[in-house]
Amino acid sequence: MSWLSVLYRVRAPDAKVQAIAHALALEQSVELPIEAIHDPFVAQDIVGRVESVRKQDDGVHAVTIRLATETTGLDLAQTLNMLFGNSSLHEHVELADVSLPPDLLARFPGPRFGIDGVRRLCGVAGRPLTCAALKPQGLPVERLAELCYTFAQAGIDVIKDDHGLADQRYSPFAARVVACQQAIERAARATGRRAIYAPSLVGAPSALSSQARIAREAGVRMMLVAPALVGMPAFAELVESTLDVPVLAHPAFAGAARMSPPLVIGKLFRLIGADAVIFPSFGGRFSYSQHTCGEIVRESRAPWAHVKATLPVPAGGITVERVPEVVRFYGNDSMLLVGGSLLAAGERLLERTREFVDLVAKSAERVSVTGPALA
Amino acid sequence: MSWLSVLYRVRAPDAKVQAIAHALALEQSVELPIEAIHDPFVAQDIVGRVESVRKQDDGVHAVTIRLATETTGLDLAQTLNMLFGNSSLHEHVELADVSLPPDLLARFPGPRFGIDGVRRLCGVAGRPLTCAALKPQGLPVERLAELCYTFAQAGIDVIKDDHGLADQRYSPFAARVVACQQAIERAARATGRRAIYAPSLVGAPSALSSQARIAREAGVRMMLVAPALVGMPAFAELVESTLDVPVLAHPAFAGAARMSPPLVIGKLFRLIGADAVIFPSFGGRFSYSQHTCGEIVRESRAPWAHVKATLPVPAGGITVERVPEVVRFYGNDSMLLVGGSLLAAGERLLERTREFVDLVAKSAERVSVTGPALA
Repeated sequence: MSWLSVLYRVRAPDAKVQAIAHALALEQSVELPIEAIHDPFVAQDIVGRVESVRKQDDGVHAVTIRLATETTGLDLAQTLNMLFGNSSLHEHVELADVSLPPDLLARFPGPRFGIDGVRRLCGVAGRPLTCAALKPQGLPVERLAELCYTFAQAGIDVIKDDHGLADQRYSPFAARVVACQQAIERAARATGRRAIYAPSLVGAPSALSSQARIAREAGVRMMLVAPALVGMPAFAELVESTLDVPVLAHPAFAGAARMSPPLVIGKLFRLIGADAVIFPSFGGRFSYSQHTCGEIVRESRAPWAHVKATLPVPAGGITVERVPEVVRFYGNDSMLLVGGSLLAAGERLLERTREFVDLVAKSAERVSVTGPALA
Repeated sequence: MSWLSVLYRVRAPDAKVQAIAHALALEQSVELPIEAIHDPFVAQDIVGRVESVRKQDDGVHAVTIRLATETTGLDLAQTLNMLFGNSSLHEHVELADVSLPPDLLARFPGPRFGIDGVRRLCGVAGRPLTCAALKPQGLPVERLAELCYTFAQAGIDVIKDDHGLADQRYSPFAARVVACQQAIERAARATGRRAIYAPSLVGAPSALSSQARIAREAGVRMMLVAPALVGMPAFAELVESTLDVPVLAHPAFAGAARMSPPLVIGKLFRLIGADAVIFPSFGGRFSYSQHTCGEIVRESRAPWAHVKATLPVPAGGITVERVPEVVRFYGNDSMLLVGGSLLAAGERLLERTREFVDLVAKSAERVSVTGPALA
């Protein structure tokens, strides 16, 4: 019998927190008052246990609960259910972290490619990778393909669809993917260096599979998927059963959760197979703090049994001017995603993108793999 | 060209809210500063628009944004992406409501059975339905089947798996479903009245399909699924492509969202095909207010184009003693789910369950279909 150790942050008065912790342990295991448990196996091996309650700041307590691995059935969806099924409905409870026992962890393959695999695919060592996005949505396929060509020509490593690109009338998935992949290959013939194009897959499970097939037939070698949007169980199954190329995870819909961002983006997305994870960096137009970003990156790269490291992809309002600072913070084992700051250049897109690419290479010379801020 | 009208609750200082509203409209449409939009079609037909900003209490503003239906590609996952993809990462933004234009709404079948279909299946008119749960998890199959028999014998309409029951070693899905369905049928031969057993499906999309097949082969006529846990797009596809019986939606994992509960549970779950929706009622062990519960119920039953009404299922700590009050509030078109309050009876489970069933029937005589509180 092994147990998961689950950390919740619980907002409660000191006098009530012990009772709330015990209620949480019951809610997330047997969902019954302890008086209604008559079976000895259930009482001993299934009922959740309060491991510790530690007071933190501002009326928040760190409550650690132990849940029986047996209750997960070694299934991802059921594991999420055990971690935060009913307790997600309690506004005073946040899911902060989880430690998986070896038998449950062994069930998850994690990233198939990870940082090393993405580096090999892109042919990049010794510096952070660069990433740009095809947008805005609403442009026709030819315009998106042109953008893709310009980014590839300027030396961007990974060119991704905006996560808002789906299968819309103005740029249908199949036509867009073929055109953008061809643009990459045309640029490769001109420059001698092949960028990677990552189209955005979105939809119900059958749509995801069919989009993945279309993309692979077009020669695509990386895919973008938002695990929280399509559902983490559907994402994990897509990765395991269908995708044979690295997967870039987008955080869309993932913030709509009372779960800590380092847990969701850094740990869970990695656990279910993301080879790279996009997240909103501090200092941009989102509100994640420098500390939160540091924790996301730590979770994505920390040694973790057989689970490969995932490439952190800071994004969300990074400007070209901020590249040196961003590289210093995240270190070389990262991929910088710059969007609006390039596209705002209009006619000067090629030059502006080249500045970005050069600045990343230059900034890299002075930092370590993980960056001093995270060493 | 039609538009979705999306209501967000935004926490912001008065002086900044206009700028934040415009940033939100850009974030949820083109994800670029307006200066970077050069294409006239994008500027006119794709860029989101601020419809209104109204000040509410406590520094919260009701911000209504219009988003182009075109951007959804008429796909559920992409619609969720447009509604709350990136903005879910903004802690000051809550997704409060959405109004779908007819062309997008037409794409969603809604409940196939709805309140009327569930009533027909259960053979119940003129009173609220009753529901009990098989738990705690950890019990062997035979014990769960015994519980099921007792509930059926006592006259419960719908007997559902605890949502914590998955495919665990101690009560494997296939064996459990067959045994519980047989218990229902044995009880039907004894009492002349057949209860409905709803097993809990949980897992990745392929596991959901295979569980659904096993359940149908066993004669099951209702299924329990948690849309937020398996992912709403996977849920919708399961309902449309595989399930030919009513679906009871469980709110597990759905609270882990900065989206209003009436929107998620009452409106979205209904839109994607839930025939009945479980939610934590006020006065129990969850913190939903009476107002929130009233709004969930209103959303689940309000007339809405071709979309059938969904049966509201209040749960989460309802005791037998509270039945009259609960029936008065929710009215006859509801299903009362009582769990722990029955199972705490131990040896007196049959009698206690009969009291519950009788009390629901009696309480029903004095109320209308929708309940005075919601009329």
